[in-house]
Amino acid sequence: MTDLLAKFATIFYPESIAVIGASADRGKFGGMFLNSLLTFGYQGRVYPVNPGENEIFGLRSYASVSEIPEPADFAVIAVPAGAVPAVVRECLAKGIKAAEILTAGFRELGPEGQKLEEEISQLATAGIGIIGPNCFGVYCPAGGITIMPGGDFSRESGPVGFISQSGGWAVRVPRLGSGLGIKFSKVVSYGNACDINECNLLEYLGHDPETRIIGGYLEGVKDGPRFLRVLREVCPIKPVILWKGGFTQGGSRAIHSHTGSLGSTEAAWDALFRQTGAIRVNSLAEVLDTLLAFYYLEPPRGRRVTVIGGGGAIGVGASDSCEQAGLSLPPFSKSLKQKLKTLLPPVGASYGNPVDVGSPYPAPAMLREVLRAVASQGDIDTIIVDEIELSTAGSSRRQGDREFEARMREVIEVPVAIKKELGKPVVVVLPVDTISADKIGLEAARRQVADYYLGEGIPVYTSIKRAAQALVNMIGYYESLNRAD
Amino acid sequence: MTDLLAKFATIFYPESIAVIGASADRGKFGGMFLNSLLTFGYQGRVYPVNPGENEIFGLRSYASVSEIPEPADFAVIAVPAGAVPAVVRECLAKGIKAAEILTAGFRELGPEGQKLEEEISQLATAGIGIIGPNCFGVYCPAGGITIMPGGDFSRESGPVGFISQSGGWAVRVPRLGSGLGIKFSKVVSYGNACDINECNLLEYLGHDPETRIIGGYLEGVKDGPRFLRVLREVCPIKPVILWKGGFTQGGSRAIHSHTGSLGSTEAAWDALFRQTGAIRVNSLAEVLDTLLAFYYLEPPRGRRVTVIGGGGAIGVGASDSCEQAGLSLPPFSKSLKQKLKTLLPPVGASYGNPVDVGSPYPAPAMLREVLRAVASQGDIDTIIVDEIELSTAGSSRRQGDREFEARMREVIEVPVAIKKELGKPVVVVLPVDTISADKIGLEAARRQVADYYLGEGIPVYTSIKRAAQALVNMIGYYESLNRAD
Repeated sequence: MTDLLAKFATIFYPESIAVIGASADRGKFGGMFLNSLLTFGYQGRVYPVNPGENEIFGLRSYASVSEIPEPADFAVIAVPAGAVPAVVRECLAKGIKAAEILTAGFRELGPEGQKLEEEISQLATAGIGIIGPNCFGVYCPAGGITIMPGGDFSRESGPVGFISQSGGWAVRVPRLGSGLGIKFSKVVSYGNACDINECNLLEYLGHDPETRIIGGYLEGVKDGPRFLRVLREVCPIKPVILWKGGFTQGGSRAIHSHTGSLGSTEAAWDALFRQTGAIRVNSLAEVLDTLLAFYYLEPPRGRRVTVIGGGGAIGVGASDSCEQAGLSLPPFSKSLKQKLKTLLPPVGASYGNPVDVGSPYPAPAMLREVLRAVASQGDIDTIIVDEIELSTAGSSRRQGDREFEARMREVIEVPVAIKKELGKPVVVVLPVDTISADKIGLEAARRQVADYYLGEGIPVYTSIKRAAQALVNMIGYYESLNRAD
Repeated sequence: MTDLLAKFATIFYPESIAVIGASADRGKFGGMFLNSLLTFGYQGRVYPVNPGENEIFGLRSYASVSEIPEPADFAVIAVPAGAVPAVVRECLAKGIKAAEILTAGFRELGPEGQKLEEEISQLATAGIGIIGPNCFGVYCPAGGITIMPGGDFSRESGPVGFISQSGGWAVRVPRLGSGLGIKFSKVVSYGNACDINECNLLEYLGHDPETRIIGGYLEGVKDGPRFLRVLREVCPIKPVILWKGGFTQGGSRAIHSHTGSLGSTEAAWDALFRQTGAIRVNSLAEVLDTLLAFYYLEPPRGRRVTVIGGGGAIGVGASDSCEQAGLSLPPFSKSLKQKLKTLLPPVGASYGNPVDVGSPYPAPAMLREVLRAVASQGDIDTIIVDEIELSTAGSSRRQGDREFEARMREVIEVPVAIKKELGKPVVVVLPVDTISADKIGLEAARRQVADYYLGEGIPVYTSIKRAAQALVNMIGYYESLNRAD
């Protein structure tokens, strides 16, 4: 264990970094990476290596790896593919213990690239840990290092570790996640995985004290039995959310030219997810939705939800979405229905489960009492507040109406108050309701409300379908733990 | 036929409207409706009826229906449920031919409400067409009338007719649709359907010369065999996109207290969709996505698509999404691959189908040549441009870089140029990439690009999954027509 953490320490927390193939041209990988690292505010020693330059971004540039004044903790390699093996040899000679190879043009290009890549794999066995090639690197805020191009990423650490065979998703997940208030321990774009692969990384994150929730995007695995063993070990400790891309014919073709991975059959993956408790997701959106649930919610006790909305058809659609995803909307008891009947408007509302409060603009006191009754008396595990108008922006005719605005603010605070008062998990659905550029003000208002909820630890989804799927993914994980017990 | 159109003429194109239960209080249905109608700019004669007022919004108010100076073409009824039958009798006595009843509190509330509703149904047979009760009314820009609250809806007519048992969706569909550039012929919120129902409305829209595409949200139908007959008649003439809500237990419960409809089994609906060619959708988003495809695209010849994106994993995910939805990504011919190989960067790109242009910021000339080659030589029916960065906003570090901005503008224009040059259907995927309020500028820029494409007749989706499903829905419709031939 200590060995494992120690092995990765120079990757995630390097005190010095050599950037081989550094450049002042930000359009090149060596320049983009160095610029990202400096913008991010890396505090360690940086050694650009480029024989054609004396200085890059104000840093002294070295002609070769051998010339840098110390064996750096970590090397970042951005030289043309053909030159990579020689550079790795130089790193080994220098005593550098780990490297990431940003350069593409290996296995994914065919036999010649594959030969080059095998050469690097071979070198790695001599004592240098290698991430990549064909990757965007590593983001670890606690270590002060970032991925390319991630100069603007958050400097704050958090509990989510994410590994990705795709560089694009390794950039998008932290970028989109930051908009949801999600903070990351480590994000690794590992590309072709010629040495360090999904197994090492999952094992590491499984034991990493910074990491509480693990996510990943995979195109294939090299060693199925080992992958199964690692997941079996890690999943009981921490949730592992995995998106496996490329099951279809077109998808497999795309994988092949992307990271050169060999996919596997859908059936094999089905079995793997069943046997390990790893959480299967199918899109970038679902990765983030599921991270969001684990990030903010206490483990729900079960699948029973109530949906509280401001319109009859909202309830119909919400029920369909929840039950189709695998949640249940248990009918309320007679006494709860009686109670709700006294609270709700006599006409145009509905006091079963789902609850229709009769209007997208409910009176705050009424909404509070309804939520309180349902949270305290309902035999339910999670409350979903669905499409109640939570900003004055939804009603352009009411903008500037101060009394109405004050009432809306009160409505907005109700889910937070109930969550605090009764400790029930609350989820809010706030759809993106406007599409055209001239309505951007409504979306800005919606996001302010969303940010408020996220700040209060309430996950916000843009649709009930996405909320329901994320909840089911989370609940399914805890059910699998209980089955395993 | 002429009879059918004539019957609905006073509903959609009334020259005079009596608003019974009118009010100066916009919080009441009678006030909200009248305000919406006047704001919308209705040009006909309006007769508010309310015995307690002399004037409402500057219009003379009448004490009763009998006192208004003419038998108005259309009555809008917003009096308490118990008073509705008497009002309908007065309308009949006055010679008013059609009415919409906004009031709720009928069948959906239980036996007493059901009795009231049956009384109204009975009165309708005496010669007054009734929409509702428990509805939000009718929007028909060519007739100058609007739904409640739809004072801000577009005054321009278009080819989409939409009927909805839910008032909420009857407001949301035109509102969201307008953000997508979609214009409507008629939108009808028909609520409990005590007289005019889904069958009459679909039959009408099927023959309405203003309507080219039909959509609907249903919770149940009263006369299954007739519904089947109507769909069989209409679907071969115009696409009918239907969302049936409330299959699940919770959904059925919600329906019951919403519009009092009796749903039906999933199997019965499956058979109905199969037998008629009606297009089945399952959410508000899918209603709009599918309308969008029919609105902008020529009927695609088949299911073969190509996805052109700026990243390897984008292609993997896109292929999975497309093939899972039922599209195919046929492999390219040897000669097309050769051609693409000469155009694309040697490393980091992929010249199969999907095409990875190697970067989310491709050179405009290269992107144009790639699209041109694929559109002219590829054995494909639709081109999907997926997640190429189509605004400078995506790269905050490049903002203010004028050369880069000019290049981005050129990139943005490529899909439009190719569509014009080669006539291939083009679809663009522009994901909503930022979530927090402080990144709203990126979303504003994204929407400007989306609006540009919509203005050029190119549908824009926020995810490849949604694009693929909408395409499959559209293509499936034309396939069903060919089978029926």
